[in-house]
Amino acid sequence: MSHYAESPFLELVDTELEEWRENFVRIRLRLKPHHLNRAGVVHGGVLATLLDHAGGFSGAYCTVPGNRRYGMTLSLTCNFVSQSKTGSLIATGQVERSGNKIFFARTKVETEDGVLVATGSSVHRYRSGSEKPEGVPARDS
Amino acid sequence: MSHYAESPFLELVDTELEEWRENFVRIRLRLKPHHLNRAGVVHGGVLATLLDHAGGFSGAYCTVPGNRRYGMTLSLTCNFVSQSKTGSLIATGQVERSGNKIFFARTKVETEDGVLVATGSSVHRYRSGSEKPEGVPARDS
Amino acid sequence: MSHYAESPFLELVDTELEEWRENFVRIRLRLKPHHLNRAGVVHGGVLATLLDHAGGFSGAYCTVPGNRRYGMTLSLTCNFVSQSKTGSLIATGQVERSGNKIFFARTKVETEDGVLVATGSSVHRYRSGSEKPEGVPARDS
Amino acid sequence: MSHYAESPFLELVDTELEEWRENFVRIRLRLKPHHLNRAGVVHGGVLATLLDHAGGFSGAYCTVPGNRRYGMTLSLTCNFVSQSKTGSLIATGQVERSGNKIFFARTKVETEDGVLVATGSSVHRYRSGSEKPEGVPARDS
Repeated sequence: MSHYAESPFLELVDTELEEWRENFVRIRLRLKPHHLNRAGVVHGGVLATLLDHAGGFSGAYCTVPGNRRYGMTLSLTCNFVSQSKTGSLIATGQVERSGNKIFFARTKVETEDGVLVATGSSVHRYRSGSEKPEGVPARDS
Repeated sequence: MSHYAESPFLELVDTELEEWRENFVRIRLRLKPHHLNRAGVVHGGVLATLLDHAGGFSGAYCTVPGNRRYGMTLSLTCNFVSQSKTGSLIATGQVERSGNKIFFARTKVETEDGVLVATGSSVHRYRSGSEKPEGVPARDS
Repeated sequence: MSHYAESPFLELVDTELEEWRENFVRIRLRLKPHHLNRAGVVHGGVLATLLDHAGGFSGAYCTVPGNRRYGMTLSLTCNFVSQSKTGSLIATGQVERSGNKIFFARTKVETEDGVLVATGSSVHRYRSGSEKPEGVPARDS
Repeated sequence: MSHYAESPFLELVDTELEEWRENFVRIRLRLKPHHLNRAGVVHGGVLATLLDHAGGFSGAYCTVPGNRRYGMTLSLTCNFVSQSKTGSLIATGQVERSGNKIFFARTKVETEDGVLVATGSSVHRYRSGSEKPEGVPARDS
């Protein structure tokens, strides 16, 4: 899925959008040496990027092809529960509660074997026009 | 300063370590298009990376040249208070309280003009051997 | 269950320990007027107390009658997703990952009808002697 | 100051509002045995209550006597950096950034001697009508 080829930072990090539907998203990251920190394990910033991405996208699925829904993260908490250095990481995001303007998400990052690596919780706000599933035309179209 | 040329993910993001002393660190990021999200502003993952980096390094200053101190982030909370897209971001980290194994940091990201962009708080744990300012020999030396 | 008749603040708030086993706890709070804030809904401090209590106890179940396990909360994040004012609140805590000294918990507060009111994530550290399920003799026995 | 005699839970906990002005609040709690946990130190729920109260009130100062401004906490993170059991705790809250509907606060709890006990960061949303400093008539007047 190339839904977000337009997101430059996610391209740099090289995430892959695997499943996206209302209130849910699953993202994969194939770990490469440039994702590691000086201790040789995945950098916290990589995990935080996955959690932020999963949280934001969990509430931004759009039912109209070509349209977009934009959200801003207000607050993100990441807990780093174990370490990882190779293989794929799977990030999932689930909307826990959604209001008119605000939605709350729970997120996690696991290895392919199901070992929990990080958990997140986040609060997001829809930009004007993005509150409804139909969304708005993409920024540059 | 090239203290952490060895941190691959920070090289990818392209942060610059500007000042590092006991209990404090200041980091610069010159914003480029690949730091942005699909809405055209800095991606939350970039800000979270800066906050994690600033929090972790604030407690990891090492008094012995060539040695290192390693910490793991246990928990990181990021609040995203405004948006940014060009210029430099300045991240600072300050240790608020430090024990034998655990330290707490407060962090923030501002524009060069002093506009607050994000704030963070984080909890870190020293790896064995890194509790003292003298640190340990670097991993690959 | 009167396992914690000795916790003065929980007595003041008037929580009830309903189920406690390894890695899990369920707590009930029967809402009374003194749990409310000036807007007439449950005070955030009440919900935070439930989340902290549930997180801490989820990792503190002790297999030896009369013994105790003590943990300290290092960090607690609470998201307040809806409001409540009457009936019972049910808080549950689940250990997500546990190491030698540190454990991570996910918690939530719901109404009796299953409406999600608040979610939490937290990091705790065992006091010396409390790392093992057998725990230590209670403080005042 | 008896500005919030109407907040039942704060009466139960017995906090005292010492200073309240635009973007700032200071609150005192005189520790009593009923604020402690089963380990004999201040319960995390007491500290979380102080941090939530300080965060919420920092953005809710109202310039019209008799009027009120109501905010809801969306997210609250508490870091518990040291322990305390006697004397007074002083909680302060400072607005870090405020928008039309959302404000961000940084908070802390210290002993009277200035020892840091807990730090907090929080995100709050104004209820309709409370966005402006003039506020709205109190609920029951």
